[in-house]
Amino acid sequence: MPEAKPPTERTLSEEEVVRLIQSLAGSGDGELLVGIGDDAAVLSVQARELVVTTDLLVEGVHFDLGFISPYDLGGRAMAANLSDLAGMGAKPRWGFLSLGLPPKPQAAFIGELVRGLVEFGRRFGLTLAGGDTVRSPQVLINLCLVGQADPAKPALRSGARPGDAVCVSGNLGASAAGLAWLAGGGDPDDSGAREAVQAHLRPLPRVAAGRALAESGQVHAMMDLSDGLATDLFRLAQASGLGAKVEAAALPIAESTRDLAAGLGIDPLDWALRGGEDFELLFTCGPGQLELLSALLAETEPDLALTRVGSMTGEPGVWLHGVGEPRDIGLMGYDHFREEG
Amino acid sequence: MPEAKPPTERTLSEEEVVRLIQSLAGSGDGELLVGIGDDAAVLSVQARELVVTTDLLVEGVHFDLGFISPYDLGGRAMAANLSDLAGMGAKPRWGFLSLGLPPKPQAAFIGELVRGLVEFGRRFGLTLAGGDTVRSPQVLINLCLVGQADPAKPALRSGARPGDAVCVSGNLGASAAGLAWLAGGGDPDDSGAREAVQAHLRPLPRVAAGRALAESGQVHAMMDLSDGLATDLFRLAQASGLGAKVEAAALPIAESTRDLAAGLGIDPLDWALRGGEDFELLFTCGPGQLELLSALLAETEPDLALTRVGSMTGEPGVWLHGVGEPRDIGLMGYDHFREEG
Repeated sequence: MPEAKPPTERTLSEEEVVRLIQSLAGSGDGELLVGIGDDAAVLSVQARELVVTTDLLVEGVHFDLGFISPYDLGGRAMAANLSDLAGMGAKPRWGFLSLGLPPKPQAAFIGELVRGLVEFGRRFGLTLAGGDTVRSPQVLINLCLVGQADPAKPALRSGARPGDAVCVSGNLGASAAGLAWLAGGGDPDDSGAREAVQAHLRPLPRVAAGRALAESGQVHAMMDLSDGLATDLFRLAQASGLGAKVEAAALPIAESTRDLAAGLGIDPLDWALRGGEDFELLFTCGPGQLELLSALLAETEPDLALTRVGSMTGEPGVWLHGVGEPRDIGLMGYDHFREEG
Repeated sequence: MPEAKPPTERTLSEEEVVRLIQSLAGSGDGELLVGIGDDAAVLSVQARELVVTTDLLVEGVHFDLGFISPYDLGGRAMAANLSDLAGMGAKPRWGFLSLGLPPKPQAAFIGELVRGLVEFGRRFGLTLAGGDTVRSPQVLINLCLVGQADPAKPALRSGARPGDAVCVSGNLGASAAGLAWLAGGGDPDDSGAREAVQAHLRPLPRVAAGRALAESGQVHAMMDLSDGLATDLFRLAQASGLGAKVEAAALPIAESTRDLAAGLGIDPLDWALRGGEDFELLFTCGPGQLELLSALLAETEPDLALTRVGSMTGEPGVWLHGVGEPRDIGLMGYDHFREEG
């Protein structure tokens, strides 16, 4: 359709926004019988178990258009939702986008945002299948994603057992480091900050790793890390009726994150425990199983390390060991209703 | 859970909001394997064809908390989404709620809003299965609903044929009349305004009628009326590669709507054609089929009238007949990006 590349400065009517999104979304797969443009989408579902997640991002709360391009914002919104599917071990299939836009929306802005979102989803097998566009004082992005869980059972938060190893994928705190750097006016292309900035602006959800871990049958509980290890491990432990302990020295923190923390006079543990938006996987398995799971992952995601950071225990709370006296750090992460000081 | 009835004046943390919503949502049905509280919900799907719709409501754009109680607001948000499923002839099953709330959310406000939403959904067979809660400068409500279309085929916008009768359920313009009355400071309990006020605050989506019409096999195209007949009929005609004509005298406008219009010096045709939020059904069928469909509906919704308002034609646009010269009223409805004057 000709609307796919409208002139930069044009503002669009609602009909034009819908047509633009429709042209960017493409035609989908054989199981999407009706896509964008009717009252609702129609899916012909072969799988028996579907996994559904939804996330709302609000300008000024979850993102600042001064720090992120519309294209990256679209990709990041998709990444945050895909990470929830990864945490279940599910395969991404269809996405539904509700977009709130200030009056007189710019064609270029919407085009880039939706293109970032659609292209990022497509990398992980997801088709944009429907949505809603409305007027709003600030930019709002709600995504509702449908994935499928078969043939593996979805990995829940509630299956952890006492004595389990608590493990994470990748590094922690890099996204928070990147955000702090950008918020302080740092150059996004600075060689020392680039890794952290990329982790913040272009996080990669662990979709393949999540599926491989769920399919291994060796993972007892799993979720994605979006609000920081302290809060998310508390949720996993609570759902399993257990507690957990974390070894400070075991936390995987990238060298570049440590350097940025030193430069800003911040304890990098803070970012690793409560920075949030890591979009890594948090899971538990039998204490001897991590080596086997790491070997398994070497096939699908060779560059992704798995690290044991602690253990599940019978004592309630999430206890940090290795920094003075052990202390309970449960829920020490991001509360969405607390105004940041 | 004890959180179901928290003290009125309390503010809640994110964890408390989630637990409150969880306790109000209930446990769902046998096909909802995992509900609120994990990364995503897990549905065990028996149906082969699923219908998915999403809608975003923004405080100050779509609702004014001065005119509507939190309980009615929850019901109304659910009604708007259920109406999209009704327009497809689908059976409501599961809902996913993203809630944006100002800092320090009040327990009573959230409790009433979610209770209104859950109870309204339950009347139509829908279970709240998951969601997201975030901080936001104003109240935001995004609902994503999953319905099932079998055994009938979903009714699309694109199937209308030249010569088809264009029909609507119920009355048009009552919701706009109720809103105008409330916005002018009118008493919601005024006997002359009550019918219109109810149509605005507590609209009833035509779920049973939509399913019956889709299952009849006699309906060629169908959608719900949310942005006004002028705009929505234009969309249906365009999707079908046709045009339409509407007879002004045939439009079903309630006596109380006409009276309110007369009192405010407004042409009631304006409300009927572009008022929006009627949440009635718009459909087309063979010119001789309306009587049969009315008889069919008499079983499921005896109080709901079906009215022929015009015909599908080969000429593009939506033409209004019977008020001076015929004129094209296509897209004369609500554009979500136009600021209302």
